[in-house]
Amino acid sequence: MNGADLLCDALLANGVDVCFANPGTSEMHFVAALDRKPQLRCVLGAFEGVVTGAADGYARMAEKPAATLLHLGPGLGNGLANLHNARRAYTPMVNIVGNHATYHRGYEAPLSSDVETLAKPMSEWVHSCDDVARMADDLNAAYVAACSAPGVATLLLPADTAWNEAPLDAIVAPAVLPPRRPFARDVADRIRSAQSAGLRVALLLDGVALRGAGLQTAGRIAARTGIRMLAPTGVGRIERGAGRVAIERVPYRIEAATAALADVDLLVLVGAIAPVAFFAYPGMPSVPTRPDCEILTCAGPDGDIAGALDWLCAELDATQTAPVLVAPAQVARPADGALSGESVTALVARHLPAQAIVVDESITTGWRFSEQSRGAPAHDMLDLTGGAIGIGLPLAAGAAIACPARKVICLQADGSGLYTCQALWTHAREQLDILTVVFANRTYNTLHGEMRRVGVNDFGANAQRMLNLDNPAVDWVGLAKAQGVQAASAATVAEFEALLLRALEQPGPFLIEALI
Amino acid sequence: MNGADLLCDALLANGVDVCFANPGTSEMHFVAALDRKPQLRCVLGAFEGVVTGAADGYARMAEKPAATLLHLGPGLGNGLANLHNARRAYTPMVNIVGNHATYHRGYEAPLSSDVETLAKPMSEWVHSCDDVARMADDLNAAYVAACSAPGVATLLLPADTAWNEAPLDAIVAPAVLPPRRPFARDVADRIRSAQSAGLRVALLLDGVALRGAGLQTAGRIAARTGIRMLAPTGVGRIERGAGRVAIERVPYRIEAATAALADVDLLVLVGAIAPVAFFAYPGMPSVPTRPDCEILTCAGPDGDIAGALDWLCAELDATQTAPVLVAPAQVARPADGALSGESVTALVARHLPAQAIVVDESITTGWRFSEQSRGAPAHDMLDLTGGAIGIGLPLAAGAAIACPARKVICLQADGSGLYTCQALWTHAREQLDILTVVFANRTYNTLHGEMRRVGVNDFGANAQRMLNLDNPAVDWVGLAKAQGVQAASAATVAEFEALLLRALEQPGPFLIEALI
Repeated sequence: MNGADLLCDALLANGVDVCFANPGTSEMHFVAALDRKPQLRCVLGAFEGVVTGAADGYARMAEKPAATLLHLGPGLGNGLANLHNARRAYTPMVNIVGNHATYHRGYEAPLSSDVETLAKPMSEWVHSCDDVARMADDLNAAYVAACSAPGVATLLLPADTAWNEAPLDAIVAPAVLPPRRPFARDVADRIRSAQSAGLRVALLLDGVALRGAGLQTAGRIAARTGIRMLAPTGVGRIERGAGRVAIERVPYRIEAATAALADVDLLVLVGAIAPVAFFAYPGMPSVPTRPDCEILTCAGPDGDIAGALDWLCAELDATQTAPVLVAPAQVARPADGALSGESVTALVARHLPAQAIVVDESITTGWRFSEQSRGAPAHDMLDLTGGAIGIGLPLAAGAAIACPARKVICLQADGSGLYTCQALWTHAREQLDILTVVFANRTYNTLHGEMRRVGVNDFGANAQRMLNLDNPAVDWVGLAKAQGVQAASAATVAEFEALLLRALEQPGPFLIEALI
Repeated sequence: MNGADLLCDALLANGVDVCFANPGTSEMHFVAALDRKPQLRCVLGAFEGVVTGAADGYARMAEKPAATLLHLGPGLGNGLANLHNARRAYTPMVNIVGNHATYHRGYEAPLSSDVETLAKPMSEWVHSCDDVARMADDLNAAYVAACSAPGVATLLLPADTAWNEAPLDAIVAPAVLPPRRPFARDVADRIRSAQSAGLRVALLLDGVALRGAGLQTAGRIAARTGIRMLAPTGVGRIERGAGRVAIERVPYRIEAATAALADVDLLVLVGAIAPVAFFAYPGMPSVPTRPDCEILTCAGPDGDIAGALDWLCAELDATQTAPVLVAPAQVARPADGALSGESVTALVARHLPAQAIVVDESITTGWRFSEQSRGAPAHDMLDLTGGAIGIGLPLAAGAAIACPARKVICLQADGSGLYTCQALWTHAREQLDILTVVFANRTYNTLHGEMRRVGVNDFGANAQRMLNLDNPAVDWVGLAKAQGVQAASAATVAEFEALLLRALEQPGPFLIEALI
């Protein structure tokens, strides 16, 4: 038994039984060890952005971390953008990066780089396991860090740690997770006094506050006290639809976010961090809350979010209050004619299957879906949390692997989708039950709006060539079929609806190119 | 005039007139400024790995840096793998990364990350221009760093530096490049004394030693002294073919490299660093040179390589010696029948147009090309230098933009090509004269060999699913056409030759899927 075998055993002991991978030479002993563990499911991504995005989607739905397997600094580099998103989604991930043998690291070999430094900005925890005797302990430490942050724990695996013989007395046992950070108990008094003084209170929720019992509890508090329940612009996962408690979102644009939060005097964070504008703009504020808005953390992303909500519910005398639940409602069928972003999302919302998992990387074109699907059958929604585009298709892959009995619907902008279009190959290879809808507007449309905001309305050649994707237009049907995914395109409402109904009927991967 | 305008002027003052870009919101003022400079050619990559790989290919051929334009930490992250390759190719690059406004950086905005830390491992120089008054000076410092290392100079551009008004007295002037690091003059004596003592001497060459006058001078020294002339396994650029001085390569595999260097007593580095094994293997050495081999640096990658060669040539009394040049020779036409890697490269070598630029990311399938094209018409060859796969298609794009009058032939392994397949879209958009040959063996074939080296011959399900790309097979013709590149596939020698001849006749992008 070598270090790599020990690592596999330690992963399995902690219930980590899916590994998203793109290995290289320095990971061959690890691959050989994984090959001896058929109970550990290995899923290949044909690019590392697929690997890390899928590990994120898996963990958001499975509520436990997946492992990754990346190859040295460049492999990690390719995975960083989606690690960034995972970090902003508070997704637990055991991110395993192979490295040169300990004694080879000091040389300027072609693939050498400072992998630890590279890992730090997108990881909550980074450690290199340089001693096979520490392998199981180091994996447990990574697992604990991933679950506690929660976030990305990067464990570097030098090749010789993997190939060295493990000590005969090596012990593999599940890690003991420490209790989550205690919530702040003085918050309830402050809420009560603020409300007594006529101040307006809102809770900003994230993590488990946005699903299951947490969501119900938030609903009870809202119904009993009138406190507004908010969620950040992008969240890792939220349960919504008919029969669920509706949560208002902080809008994306700073002007709208500022307006939405203008009357909040006290903002209490439960699982969330304080809201910040996505970008700075000349003369605009960096934060959407009023300068005199009081912001209190009851529980941070690493805190006891569920405990905080239960306690607030009891303190605010809401345990016997029924939450207000969303009534079933179906959005109207859009009128026939040419397809638009609005009609695409209306049709998806209208025909949404129960328990669908909706992955949203639709950027400028899909934002109406939220309102259109308000009363749709209960579903989960997974957002682009960190603004690093290229997450939709990988995230959908991971979610589908976590929940094989549920339909995954990926609302995908075309410019972002092109970033990690190789994920379609994984959709096909694993025969995942994913319907991808590509909003083919053939521009980085969000940047057209941003250019107008900086005062440029007439684009010259350089701006046009940097912001448009129309020459040539990417043929998404061809791109999907080339990777083994069935696909068709639609230019009208009727065509799209027919394709949508057909795709929802059949299991397996399918892509609709919505020509909008 | 704002900071972004000043940046454009400073780029142009230094002759940097091509910008490979994938901008985002925080770079809108820079995009607007570029739009006001039609003499600065902006080329969009639909993924940042395309951007950095193309900037590398451009600089290798243009012998001057291109600028890049990347978006925050995740955009930089996506570009890191090809920055790694550029660093290992000693490619000068002005890598511009947009960042949040200085006052916004302290907030945990969704897209915030520690961009400077992320940049360091793959950059020779990193600096954030936080003051618009420093814009032109900082760009000049980046340009000097890029050209001197030579390597990647990363300049962070906070959004407010770009949008703030530039001082009225801002001066834009070309940077003054410092002289290159002087070469070591004691090396000639050591070579002479070693040769007198019957020791065997070799020169390991890189950079300008592998082209033009440098190559000629190396040839004179070799012809006069019998000193072996070697180049590293992968080099940024080498001139070769008929009428050129032939340079022996250090083999990739450590066993072969060790054998090739077994009789070298003194290795003199001219533009190169000491050779190191690509990977460590149990029981194998990390360096291919004999433990008692003396290694002397005459000039490092940042040294006066041309001066060193001229001086060595004079000191070794070789200035009047004619170099031995490769005679024209055409490799035999392979026998008809099913296509193989060997017959593909033979046909490419056989029909190689004069002054072709050959980009080689063929990994396991194309290695015979080197020998087959030995006497082919004079051409340049650009290698994968850093082992970070996914460089071929982007590198070809950059080379084609630098040398529009020359045919670029990209020898592309399929697994690696999939990493940055979005580069095909840039081939089409810019109508680049690139013939891509994809070696469609549908595996990570190099890893099959590596698995055998770790003793695994029979793969189980996990290893097969991590090392093979066959289920489904990617349809490269479809992938290319979907992005606007003409393409066809060939399964026999006759089919491939017919396609090759047709593709060499017509300008513009074309892809041949070689089914091997």
